[in-house]
Amino acid sequence: MAENIDCAMMQRCVILARQAAGKTAPNPLVGCVIVQDGEIVGEGFHPKAGDPHAEVFALRQAGDRAKGATLYVNLEPCNHHGRTPPCSDAVIAAGIGRVVIGMIDPNPQVAGTGSDRLKQAGIEVSVGIEESACQTLNEAFVHRILHHRPFGILKYAMTLDGKIAAVTRHSAWVTSEAARGEVHQLRATCDAVIVGGNTVRADDPLLTSRQPGQTPLRVIMSRTLDLPISANVWNTSVASTLVLTQVGVQQMFQADLKQRGVDVVELEPLTPSTVMAHLYDRGFLTVLWECGGTLAARAIAEGAVQKVLAFIAPKIIGGVTAPSPVGDLGLKKMTEALTLNPVSWRAIGSDLLIEGYLPKNKTRLSPH
Amino acid sequence: MAENIDCAMMQRCVILARQAAGKTAPNPLVGCVIVQDGEIVGEGFHPKAGDPHAEVFALRQAGDRAKGATLYVNLEPCNHHGRTPPCSDAVIAAGIGRVVIGMIDPNPQVAGTGSDRLKQAGIEVSVGIEESACQTLNEAFVHRILHHRPFGILKYAMTLDGKIAAVTRHSAWVTSEAARGEVHQLRATCDAVIVGGNTVRADDPLLTSRQPGQTPLRVIMSRTLDLPISANVWNTSVASTLVLTQVGVQQMFQADLKQRGVDVVELEPLTPSTVMAHLYDRGFLTVLWECGGTLAARAIAEGAVQKVLAFIAPKIIGGVTAPSPVGDLGLKKMTEALTLNPVSWRAIGSDLLIEGYLPKNKTRLSPH
Repeated sequence: MAENIDCAMMQRCVILARQAAGKTAPNPLVGCVIVQDGEIVGEGFHPKAGDPHAEVFALRQAGDRAKGATLYVNLEPCNHHGRTPPCSDAVIAAGIGRVVIGMIDPNPQVAGTGSDRLKQAGIEVSVGIEESACQTLNEAFVHRILHHRPFGILKYAMTLDGKIAAVTRHSAWVTSEAARGEVHQLRATCDAVIVGGNTVRADDPLLTSRQPGQTPLRVIMSRTLDLPISANVWNTSVASTLVLTQVGVQQMFQADLKQRGVDVVELEPLTPSTVMAHLYDRGFLTVLWECGGTLAARAIAEGAVQKVLAFIAPKIIGGVTAPSPVGDLGLKKMTEALTLNPVSWRAIGSDLLIEGYLPKNKTRLSPH
Repeated sequence: MAENIDCAMMQRCVILARQAAGKTAPNPLVGCVIVQDGEIVGEGFHPKAGDPHAEVFALRQAGDRAKGATLYVNLEPCNHHGRTPPCSDAVIAAGIGRVVIGMIDPNPQVAGTGSDRLKQAGIEVSVGIEESACQTLNEAFVHRILHHRPFGILKYAMTLDGKIAAVTRHSAWVTSEAARGEVHQLRATCDAVIVGGNTVRADDPLLTSRQPGQTPLRVIMSRTLDLPISANVWNTSVASTLVLTQVGVQQMFQADLKQRGVDVVELEPLTPSTVMAHLYDRGFLTVLWECGGTLAARAIAEGAVQKVLAFIAPKIIGGVTAPSPVGDLGLKKMTEALTLNPVSWRAIGSDLLIEGYLPKNKTRLSPH
């Protein structure tokens, strides 16, 4: 029974934490619940980097009722002075009697130190409650900490015969309004959305989340900068735009873009890897690849994609030359295909969304 | 409550009937249950053309207990002398008190006559119980009666990025063993499975059901007959094979095939339409298209496909020139795509099977 309460409270932490998805980078998503005599006396979540941690909000709300209470938090409380003082100290000072932790800090160098500090202060500590849900909640943060890169998601929408557009490249729309709404929600939880020059030329996307103030940074990768000056993404009044190109390309056009408020950065070489390194340096957690097949294949091959979100519309468009979601990966036999695992799916309106994780070791595809 | 029993007994009829799937052509799938005082006293199904109808087996089993009983049958009892005497007469002669019918005969010229005959004999008749399930059970028979063509199913297996093979055409295997087992079961319920010459050359398939005696007729469509003489499908000891080609093509090769027990028929012109007309004349209900994208597109365009079964494996193979399941349909805009409706899906092993029906009016694609 006590275990059921622990699980329920940890699930509540996850729900609280998720409210800030897309706003906390480079920090994790953290929610906290304080329970005294079977009653929730404090709740909180970390709203954004620089703001107090979840524990602080929950302790403030609980006040004196924190004494002897149980504190639930999906991620091990920090034990170091960052922009804010260590949460372990605050928990101890409040007289919390028991701390239930969803998952230990993914950084091997600090993992367990917050938990140890609490134990040393005589607090009962339980670790690993609803751990799988907590790991999934912060999969991007964990990836960032372990690999020093943002977590990459490749999203595409295709017909039931595997096409992301007709032979003419016309693609409005593959999926239903409900699925497109889901994509807008997804964008709001990401720090950046990337497309290549081909997508700007063919689709002229807006790449917004349609949730004011929650549009991620729109990133355009283009070696040539051979892009229309009237493209929707240059309108920086609706959202910020970053153009990543190669050194010395089209200086006049670059100046034009900068005058419109577009950020332009030259990378050498310009590849999915260098792009992800740059976005890591910007502190990003999650990057959404919404590009066409050519760039998608390069991103996969270079390990810049961890998760695939495939929207499948139950329609047939046909077309031998109609584009598919993933270009050349150099795989010659079906047995070499990259198997997603784990995989889940759900209906969204009349479409299906299949989600899965790419294999972690892709050395053959990613020799660098 | 009585209604619940009616539904349950009709569902039982459907289950009984389905046992003969793939064996009854050109006849429908029919199951029959006789209930006396809340107890099932007789059951039967139509096993194959030429054998007695379902009602006859159920009445035989019920014997004297049929008097005053309720008879359930998923399809309106026949009222004409075919290879067997009319079932309506047998039902009346047995003294059945009430008849519950799932669906009326789809043939507009005889629809309702069996039911009327029973009413005239003073039997209470209810029609339309579990009608949707009964219609689906006999969708192929209904299509055959109304359109004078077999019901066409297009089945393909593709990766999550829409490919039925790698760039090299290597395709063994896209889906899991569980999904391939499902395909073998599916074949056993069909009267013919069709592939084109390309598939024979690239995959050398066996096209069996691996259920002895239940392999459908293997049909190879080839304009050129430029096919390997060692292909698996020429082994007629495991299953029958029919080659459909154009008039006068490769007479020596045709003679070779005939010597191996392969049936060869020349059609002019050789198209999905003329093939389906020929298979209709052979009395077939269901034809499974297991061909590649080129032939699949022609079959769809000519209205030879009513239902699509797409197996999707959660893997990424990539490849701009890797083949997709459907070739050119001449559709230029995504808004022209053929939307499947209704659609259903289920997991099979690690794969997903999406089933849906093509629109009934495809005049633009099928001008003839």
